[in-house]
Amino acid sequence: MKFCNQCGQSVSQRIPEGDNLPRYVCDQCQTIHYQNPNIVAGSIPVIGDKILLCKRAIEPRYGLWTLPAGYMENNETVEQAAIRESQEEANANIELEQLYTVFSLPHANQVYMMYRARLLDEDFSPGIESLEVRLFDENEIPWDKLAFSTIYYTLKYFFEDRARGDFLLRSHPVEKMT
Amino acid sequence: MKFCNQCGQSVSQRIPEGDNLPRYVCDQCQTIHYQNPNIVAGSIPVIGDKILLCKRAIEPRYGLWTLPAGYMENNETVEQAAIRESQEEANANIELEQLYTVFSLPHANQVYMMYRARLLDEDFSPGIESLEVRLFDENEIPWDKLAFSTIYYTLKYFFEDRARGDFLLRSHPVEKMT
Repeated sequence: MKFCNQCGQSVSQRIPEGDNLPRYVCDQCQTIHYQNPNIVAGSIPVIGDKILLCKRAIEPRYGLWTLPAGYMENNETVEQAAIRESQEEANANIELEQLYTVFSLPHANQVYMMYRARLLDEDFSPGIESLEVRLFDENEIPWDKLAFSTIYYTLKYFFEDRARGDFLLRSHPVEKMT
Repeated sequence: MKFCNQCGQSVSQRIPEGDNLPRYVCDQCQTIHYQNPNIVAGSIPVIGDKILLCKRAIEPRYGLWTLPAGYMENNETVEQAAIRESQEEANANIELEQLYTVFSLPHANQVYMMYRARLLDEDFSPGIESLEVRLFDENEIPWDKLAFSTIYYTLKYFFEDRARGDFLLRSHPVEKMT
């Protein structure tokens, strides 16, 4: 950030009075510009024993597989964001069941919130951000071609919990994928 | 938003190619400025049968009671944010137990994430954003002087679940308080 989005003048980094972190503050109008993490909302769409995955048509991680997920927008709920992403990326009709994983990614300033979901029918197809969308049995999951560590953990916990017959909310930080 | 924070030129609202929502886009350098919801992270600090509440020394809701909570910052986890807020607002030492409430507030572009927590000792005191910090028994909670509906719901569920002996994750949208 170099300029104030309110008045167009230059900004500089300093700790505002009563604060304890450096912020971008406008040299002219004194507006403080806070920067905060974004929520990535998504789902694990399940039909029968199968899971819906999307092959990414965009960077980062072009060509790798992911669960439908994306940035939550203003004026919507986390649940609406998760449903919208399944529609945008896979033209999929889902019904949310349970908030299932909550992962903080402090290196990326993101918080993932993934829901277990029922895929209501097999009438799905690639959205503009997907090259391919298909159903996977557990033994078909492309573990070495997953786009993000958050997706890896979500799927890993899902199959563990499904085998045990009890789905627990999983919440922990996720380190940068190496 | 009126100006681009990258180049200082004017922005206008339009739907970028491949998008479906209007964004602020720089007329000069074409940077797209996304705006997304913020996370408010906090806790329910419990010691014995008592709950720690803070009387707000800042607007909005000056003078009303709240649980320690505030905006999650970049480069931290949700858990770290919840612990930091208990320190900043109440100089309280807590240990998190469970992610307990997740509330979307689409009218405010916020998502509240509140954790059940153990208050480790009674060595607490008002931080700069609090007029007063004290412990409340269930029958002392100032229900008509709570700052936010998210705090009301979190406390209501907490006492219901404590009476029943089983704490469930509670997640739903919260409407604007009237």
